[in-house]
Amino acid sequence: MRYKVIFAYDGTNYFGYAKQPYKKTIQGEIEGVLQTIFQKDLTIYASGRTDKGVHALNQVIHFDIENEIDEDRLLTSMNKMLPDDIYIKSIEKVDENFHARFSAKQKMYEYLVNVGEYNPLRRNFEHFIKDLDIDKMEEASKLFVGKHSFKNFTSKEEDEENFVREIVKVEFVKERGYLRIRFLGNGFMKYQVRKMVGVLFEIGKGKIDENFITKYLDLENRDIVTYTAPSNGLYLKEVIY
Amino acid sequence: MRYKVIFAYDGTNYFGYAKQPYKKTIQGEIEGVLQTIFQKDLTIYASGRTDKGVHALNQVIHFDIENEIDEDRLLTSMNKMLPDDIYIKSIEKVDENFHARFSAKQKMYEYLVNVGEYNPLRRNFEHFIKDLDIDKMEEASKLFVGKHSFKNFTSKEEDEENFVREIVKVEFVKERGYLRIRFLGNGFMKYQVRKMVGVLFEIGKGKIDENFITKYLDLENRDIVTYTAPSNGLYLKEVIY
Repeated sequence: MRYKVIFAYDGTNYFGYAKQPYKKTIQGEIEGVLQTIFQKDLTIYASGRTDKGVHALNQVIHFDIENEIDEDRLLTSMNKMLPDDIYIKSIEKVDENFHARFSAKQKMYEYLVNVGEYNPLRRNFEHFIKDLDIDKMEEASKLFVGKHSFKNFTSKEEDEENFVREIVKVEFVKERGYLRIRFLGNGFMKYQVRKMVGVLFEIGKGKIDENFITKYLDLENRDIVTYTAPSNGLYLKEVIY
Repeated sequence: MRYKVIFAYDGTNYFGYAKQPYKKTIQGEIEGVLQTIFQKDLTIYASGRTDKGVHALNQVIHFDIENEIDEDRLLTSMNKMLPDDIYIKSIEKVDENFHARFSAKQKMYEYLVNVGEYNPLRRNFEHFIKDLDIDKMEEASKLFVGKHSFKNFTSKEEDEENFVREIVKVEFVKERGYLRIRFLGNGFMKYQVRKMVGVLFEIGKGKIDENFITKYLDLENRDIVTYTAPSNGLYLKEVIY
């Protein structure tokens, strides 16, 4: 039996989603709880990883178990046992062909920017930065749309064979004192959103212009963009199947 | 010279406002920074204390210093030196008769309740509780308005001579999935707001009714109300001079 789980987390106090020895990770916490409940080894498969400090509103995993389970009861048990910064929103039985990562068609990430006054209560949940030329950023952001090689918008650690990803849409939502930058794409590599946002910030500050994107996007040579926006403003908002 | 400072803080990681030996407190952090800047012992006076875990959006202190200072420069220095969960919003020179506590005419506290779905990202900034009869709570809350002895709505530690305080207004603001309860009064004792809210929660759950308030309010005997709402939803919003 395969089960799909949707959950939210505050990434502030974790070393990212992916399990690492001796480190507090989201995967480690959830697997630990499931292993306690089912009294056996068990691996969960996520739609993708999130970095240290990155949040998720609707992360998706799947796992397999021999016997049918009572989803409502499992949800209640998991939320009782998990720390209060991880919250299971739903559990449903899915077809055995479903795979949290490989069945994902699109993902939506949101980067939240406070462009007003610094708020100490929101420091882990938004990036504070002032005096940005937001119109210039929005204009430049359109260059990311489409199929591109993001070879220089990811980490060296990433050993992908294929660096091409498709960005379906970049949306700028402007509210009073706030800017939300939404990226909808078919997949994102490690640091990719943070590097795109990092470059947009530099453009917004007037330190570089959009030619920077033209130069580094689809570039075959390895010459990784050093601008990386902080993790606190980044949210995995939705995985679309 | 006397200076008035307005600042905000996330109370989550502090043992409250008031200085205590060997404990991380808001007062301790601010006095420490001022002592470093001015290279001398210095005491700050606040409008009042906040408990462990309680937040402030506009807390007010004053302090004295011999020489005139450059307020803008001090503000910048303090924000650079303070931890990122405390933020100085303004500093201004005031009359020597001004006293952060004794000159305060009114205070506004807000208690934020999530009555929708639990949100792990907001766990330190709102109290999550479902299935409340909010209309009943609002009706009952009116009993607090006026001049009353809150002797049984405070802590035993509090050794006030006078337990009478005036609540000028209790306001219920209902938003989608949220309830804000605002208390405007001439002063509040330790735990007073949290005990009032704690009682309102019990009324909302149908465990007690408003006769409970009638019984304990203005009661001369010491028989302290045990219901105390958690600190995470409480904000000192404004001090009015």
